[in-house]
Amino acid sequence: MGALEVALAAVRPVDAAARAAAAERLDRMTKPRGALGQVEALAVDLAGIAGACPPPVPEPAAVAVFAADHGVHARGVTPWPQEVTAQMVANFLAGGAVVNAFARRVGAGVHVVDVGVAAPLDPADGLLLRRVAPGTADMTAGPALDRDRALAAVEVGIAVAGELAAAGNRCLVTGDMGIANTTAAAALVCAFTGADPAAATGRGTGVDDATLARKTAVVAQALALHRPDPADPLGVLSAFGGLEHAALAGLVLGGAAHRLPVLLDGVNAGAAALVAAAFAPAAVGYCVAGHRSAEPGHRLTLAHLGLVPLLDLGLRLGEGTGALLALPVLQAAAQAMQDVATFDAAGVVDKNG
Amino acid sequence: MGALEVALAAVRPVDAAARAAAAERLDRMTKPRGALGQVEALAVDLAGIAGACPPPVPEPAAVAVFAADHGVHARGVTPWPQEVTAQMVANFLAGGAVVNAFARRVGAGVHVVDVGVAAPLDPADGLLLRRVAPGTADMTAGPALDRDRALAAVEVGIAVAGELAAAGNRCLVTGDMGIANTTAAAALVCAFTGADPAAATGRGTGVDDATLARKTAVVAQALALHRPDPADPLGVLSAFGGLEHAALAGLVLGGAAHRLPVLLDGVNAGAAALVAAAFAPAAVGYCVAGHRSAEPGHRLTLAHLGLVPLLDLGLRLGEGTGALLALPVLQAAAQAMQDVATFDAAGVVDKNG
Repeated sequence: MGALEVALAAVRPVDAAARAAAAERLDRMTKPRGALGQVEALAVDLAGIAGACPPPVPEPAAVAVFAADHGVHARGVTPWPQEVTAQMVANFLAGGAVVNAFARRVGAGVHVVDVGVAAPLDPADGLLLRRVAPGTADMTAGPALDRDRALAAVEVGIAVAGELAAAGNRCLVTGDMGIANTTAAAALVCAFTGADPAAATGRGTGVDDATLARKTAVVAQALALHRPDPADPLGVLSAFGGLEHAALAGLVLGGAAHRLPVLLDGVNAGAAALVAAAFAPAAVGYCVAGHRSAEPGHRLTLAHLGLVPLLDLGLRLGEGTGALLALPVLQAAAQAMQDVATFDAAGVVDKNG
Repeated sequence: MGALEVALAAVRPVDAAARAAAAERLDRMTKPRGALGQVEALAVDLAGIAGACPPPVPEPAAVAVFAADHGVHARGVTPWPQEVTAQMVANFLAGGAVVNAFARRVGAGVHVVDVGVAAPLDPADGLLLRRVAPGTADMTAGPALDRDRALAAVEVGIAVAGELAAAGNRCLVTGDMGIANTTAAAALVCAFTGADPAAATGRGTGVDDATLARKTAVVAQALALHRPDPADPLGVLSAFGGLEHAALAGLVLGGAAHRLPVLLDGVNAGAAALVAAAFAPAAVGYCVAGHRSAEPGHRLTLAHLGLVPLLDLGLRLGEGTGALLALPVLQAAAQAMQDVATFDAAGVVDKNG
C-alpha cells in the first residue's frame, strides 16, 4: 500500500463514548449547564478526537505552512507577482511574518514546507524541501497537475503530519502561502460543494472589481473545462491544484490518522479539508475550524463540512494566522475539562435544572 | 480630592498620534493591506491606549474577580441560593473554577476581591478582603446601596487597579461573581441605554420562562421606583447596585487612569463600563470587549459603548472567562506590531493598491 492508502485505513470515526463522557462531565462541572456555549461543543469534540475524557490539552502545537505557486497566476487573477511566494517564504524563515508573531505568542512551532514554489529555494533551518513540481500549470489551459504529482503532494502532507506527530506535537495547525492560491481554492470549493463561481470567488488579498471579475471568469472557465467529479479527489486536485491544497489535504488525513486535532485556517485550508473529506469523510471529525475568513468561499466550505468557526475577525491573510489565534481557545477547552472541579468535589450547591 | 476624583482627573483621551502611527505602520507590514481585519483595529486601539507605536504586548495580565451578593435575590430571580457566591469564591481560591483553568492556560493571574459577599469570608491567599457591605438591599424595596457605599465600592475597584498596575500588570481583565447579579446588570443597562427591561433582561445562568418573566418584572419595577438619572452614575449605582458592578466601574476608571487596556468580560462588565463611561466618557477608549455573551443586555451595551467584541462563542458564565479567552488575541495584535517586518525591510514586493 502507498502512504495515502495507509493513512486512509487509519482514519477512524471519532470516539462516541469519549464524547458522551465529556458531555456528562461538563454537566457536573462547577458552572451553569451549557454556560460555556460553543466551548462546550469544542471540549466534546476534543474528547472524541483523542478518544479520552478528559481530553489532553493539545500542546505543543505546530503550524505547517505549505508554500507553492500556481500556473493560473498568468491569467491576471492578482496584482502580486509570483516571486512574492518565495519572498514570503524567506520572511517566514527570518521570523518576520504575521504567522511568526502569532505563533510566538501562542507557543506554536512554525514549519515551512516547499511543496511547489516556482523559484528554487536554498536549504534553511525550519524549511522542509519537499517540492513535487515548480508550481502548477494553468488550470484554464489543461490539468494543473498530473495525477501522480497530485498524489505525491498529498503524501507530502501525510508525511509532514507523521513527522510532526512523531516529534511530539499534539495539535496540527494548517498554514499556506501561494500567490494566486485563492483562485485554486475557489475552483476546489465549487467542485466539491457545487457552488457557483460567482458565490465562491472572493477578493483574496484584496483585488479590485475588474480583477475579481476576471478571477471569477477564470474559475468558471476551469470548471467548464474539467467538469470535475467530486467523488474523485485526486482528479479534482489534478484539474485545479494547488500543490499546497493537496499537501494540506494530506496533513488533515495524517492528523486524523494520528487522532490529533487539525486546526484549520481559512479558505485554502477549508478547500483542502473538502479534498480530505472526499478521501475519507471521517477525517472531518478531526478538524476544528479556527476562524471564518472574509473570503466568501470559506463560508460555503464550513457550511458544507458542518464546521462552526471559533473566531470571525474578518481575517483574509492565510499563513495559518487565523487558526493560530484560535489555538488558545482550543487548548483552554481541554484545560477546563482537565482542571475544573465538579459540584460534588467543590462543595458547591448544584441548581442546574 | 477623593480617590474617584483623582482617577477621573487622570483619565485622558487615548493618544491620537500613536493611533495614526499604528495605522500607517500596519500598511507597511508584510501582508495585504487590511488583511488582519478586526485585529488591525485592535492594534490601533492598543497603540492609542499605550500612547506608543508599536504598542507594548499587554503582559502580564491579571483578572480581578469582584464578588458580591444582591438583596434582589429574595425576589426569586434565580434558582441558585445566595450561598453559592461564597462557595464559588472558595472554588476560585482552590483553583477549581473555569476562570482558574482559563487563566492558567493564558498566563493570567487571578485575584479575587470580596467587595460585598453576604457570608463572612476567611482571609486566604489570592483573596482581597475589601467588603463594603454584606451585599446590597432589594432594589425593588428601596435603594440597593447608599451613595457613600456605592462610592466606596467604586474606590475599591480604583484601588485594585492601582495595586495590580503597581505589581507590574499591563492588562486588567474584569471578572465577577454574584448570584442574581445579571438582574442588577439588566437594571443598569436599562438606566444607561434607555432599553426596555424586556429587551435587556436575560436568562443569566439559564433560568426558565417563569423565572425570566419574574426577573423582567422585577427590573421594570425597580426602574419605575428609582427613575434613574443616567447623568448621575453614583445615583444609578445606589439605586440598583451591585457592589461588584461599582467596583468593576472603578477598575475600568483606574485602568484608564494608568493607560492600561481593560479587557471586558460579559454583561456585568459591560454594565460597569456604562457606569464608568457616565463618570468619564474617555474611559471607554481603554476598554476592549473580550466577547459578546449570550445575555441580550450585553449586545445593547456593546452597541451603546461602540465596542466590537473579539469573540462570540455563546458564553454566559461570567467570572472573566470570556475575556480570558480573548486575551491571546489582544496580545497577538501587539506582538504583530512589535515583530512583523515591513515590505522594505523584508525585501518583499509591495503590491498594495
